[in-house]
Amino acid sequence: MPDLHLPLGFQYAGVHCGVKSDAKKPDLSLFVSDRPCAAVGVYTQNRVVGAPVIVDRARTPSDSVRAVVINSGNANACTGERGVEDAQRMTALVAIAVDAAREDVLVCSTGIIGHHLPMEQIENGIGLAKGVLSGSAESLELAARGMMTTDTFPKIASRSEDWDGTIVTVTGACKGAAMIAPNMATMLAVVMTDVAIDATQASMILKEAVDESFNSISVDGHTSTSDTVLLLANGASGRPAETPEEIESVRSMVTLVCQNLAEMIIRDAEGAEHFVRIEIAGLPDRNDARKIAKTIAEGALCKTAITGNDPNWGRFVSAAGYSEVEFDLNQLSLDINGVRVFESGSPVVYDEALVSSRMAEGEVNLHLDFGGETDPAGPVVFLTSDLTAEYVRLNSEYTT
Amino acid sequence: MPDLHLPLGFQYAGVHCGVKSDAKKPDLSLFVSDRPCAAVGVYTQNRVVGAPVIVDRARTPSDSVRAVVINSGNANACTGERGVEDAQRMTALVAIAVDAAREDVLVCSTGIIGHHLPMEQIENGIGLAKGVLSGSAESLELAARGMMTTDTFPKIASRSEDWDGTIVTVTGACKGAAMIAPNMATMLAVVMTDVAIDATQASMILKEAVDESFNSISVDGHTSTSDTVLLLANGASGRPAETPEEIESVRSMVTLVCQNLAEMIIRDAEGAEHFVRIEIAGLPDRNDARKIAKTIAEGALCKTAITGNDPNWGRFVSAAGYSEVEFDLNQLSLDINGVRVFESGSPVVYDEALVSSRMAEGEVNLHLDFGGETDPAGPVVFLTSDLTAEYVRLNSEYTT
Repeated sequence: MPDLHLPLGFQYAGVHCGVKSDAKKPDLSLFVSDRPCAAVGVYTQNRVVGAPVIVDRARTPSDSVRAVVINSGNANACTGERGVEDAQRMTALVAIAVDAAREDVLVCSTGIIGHHLPMEQIENGIGLAKGVLSGSAESLELAARGMMTTDTFPKIASRSEDWDGTIVTVTGACKGAAMIAPNMATMLAVVMTDVAIDATQASMILKEAVDESFNSISVDGHTSTSDTVLLLANGASGRPAETPEEIESVRSMVTLVCQNLAEMIIRDAEGAEHFVRIEIAGLPDRNDARKIAKTIAEGALCKTAITGNDPNWGRFVSAAGYSEVEFDLNQLSLDINGVRVFESGSPVVYDEALVSSRMAEGEVNLHLDFGGETDPAGPVVFLTSDLTAEYVRLNSEYTT
Repeated sequence: MPDLHLPLGFQYAGVHCGVKSDAKKPDLSLFVSDRPCAAVGVYTQNRVVGAPVIVDRARTPSDSVRAVVINSGNANACTGERGVEDAQRMTALVAIAVDAAREDVLVCSTGIIGHHLPMEQIENGIGLAKGVLSGSAESLELAARGMMTTDTFPKIASRSEDWDGTIVTVTGACKGAAMIAPNMATMLAVVMTDVAIDATQASMILKEAVDESFNSISVDGHTSTSDTVLLLANGASGRPAETPEEIESVRSMVTLVCQNLAEMIIRDAEGAEHFVRIEIAGLPDRNDARKIAKTIAEGALCKTAITGNDPNWGRFVSAAGYSEVEFDLNQLSLDINGVRVFESGSPVVYDEALVSSRMAEGEVNLHLDFGGETDPAGPVVFLTSDLTAEYVRLNSEYTT
């Protein structure tokens, strides 16, 4: 990523400190701003949460965050009071390193559940990371690698705009759900911008962006204990978002960055052979539409039909039927990769071999139209992967 | 099943008429009572329903049902108005054959979705079936076989009691979710008794029994378009259930028969290598408990941990966490096959190799205690199977 424009005022580091056994793999990352940031978070809906989520929830929204520290290899979840103390200590160590208050440092952990963090290694790693902090794209990539568990590639996305001669930027790094591990597939993302926005604006922008991105993907429906998306805005570009157009522009950049990252997560879902895009049109309520899409995306019989390149529309239609959303079957039509297979509640004659061969190319598009008015913002788009024997093998290997 | 005591006044038949291609496999079944039955049904919650469900819902509850006709191989679902006409015609043909009103005949279909029934074969089959009706256990087994799609064995369960010298009986036949087919894995059951109860009593009894049996199992969470459980009571034993004790006794027999059948469905879940029993104690609300059990039962990461004999309690605990039921993690304890692995919200040291080897025997018992009062009726028990590469293979084979 040589010509990646990064937001001003941020520095990154990713180092190996020994949480992971493989010394070639970074396992501790820092994201540091040279000035206070407006910072907000969106956290897992799971009632069982990792210690870092407890700490970050208490510290956001904030107008003074300076850094985020992330370790991979150990989720620090289901670790009781000592886990919370360890998470707090991580932030205290970073605070000393970057000369901040510890309340202005956020923390994320991802990896195995139910084990205490190796704090000696973590402490050492924070020292190492501080020594190599830089604003380069290479450092950002190392920081993105330091978040990875079973991801096969680092995930970074960026958008810039020219605001009357000032370049403003939104850049995000995330780790996804590669689903090899015997652990949860935690989703973590840090999104940074050098536009100045306050925490209230940031909160509204991030919530919307997450709904249209990370909340619109699913590999297997298992909500992790540690899912976290953070948005940090440090204003280092010198430009605040003041007009409605500017705020809309930031919202759009943040949403696009989150959507790019979310798509990378699905493309990196291990064991997957198909990238699946589910579009729901003709329903006025986006939440209803997303609920139907999620039910199809997570249905084992839907996923395995796609695995087998089988345009078995009965599975998709009946999954919509058990999604708990009201609709009129006689208004429902379904296209698979551009071919109408079900129309107004009845089967239609179509070329099954053609549709199957299009599915076999690896990208599957399910377009469901429920016959009503579509939300002005367009159809809901939900991304998922298929379910393969390889997924089962990867996730059932005995590794405890 | 030589010494199976069957309810008086019922006759059965199962024949091959040609819906299925294999001439050795029965595909049409009749259950006939020699007198009118109180009859009630519990039907799929899916908003997309097969034509037979539309017909039966309109005819139950009833005090005058005489027969149930079932075909396998074709679900008569998503077949529009013609599908409803076909289902009604099946009941009309049976009504003529057994000298009843057509409103007093119920109908079920299971098999592929989106195809019209081959009515000529069905009509012929009804004639054949009428000719071989008998009250023998052999005929009942043929009727149970005529309901099967991908089941590997017929599923029949029975309970009798001696009421002051009169034997009263509840017998059920069902087909389950063997999950090979490219179609829905519809669950159908017909439960018969020769006790006299009215439709109001029957309705209350069946609802409770289904909650504690068929609604407490899941293979993959896909609610079929055609799920149907029917209870027929013909009073042929000469004994009505009048006292609270007698009604309780019928309720108990019906529940046990349904639980036996439900367990057979899980044991016949194809591709499965583990039989999994999830017990939820320490929650006052049975629906909450069932919701948590279902979330664990249907979680791909939970299922694959079991496939791999991995006592990976983090997956089970975090699945409980995303079930949308409120609970206090610090009160939660988990035993796997009798070994405590998680206690009061914290990991405990245990013998992982021992637990894994017990899991490898093929039966897995997850006992979750949420620390509160258990419902007086005892812990909720939920049955499921694991998720294997074989399941994926069976369900992804291209067969449309």
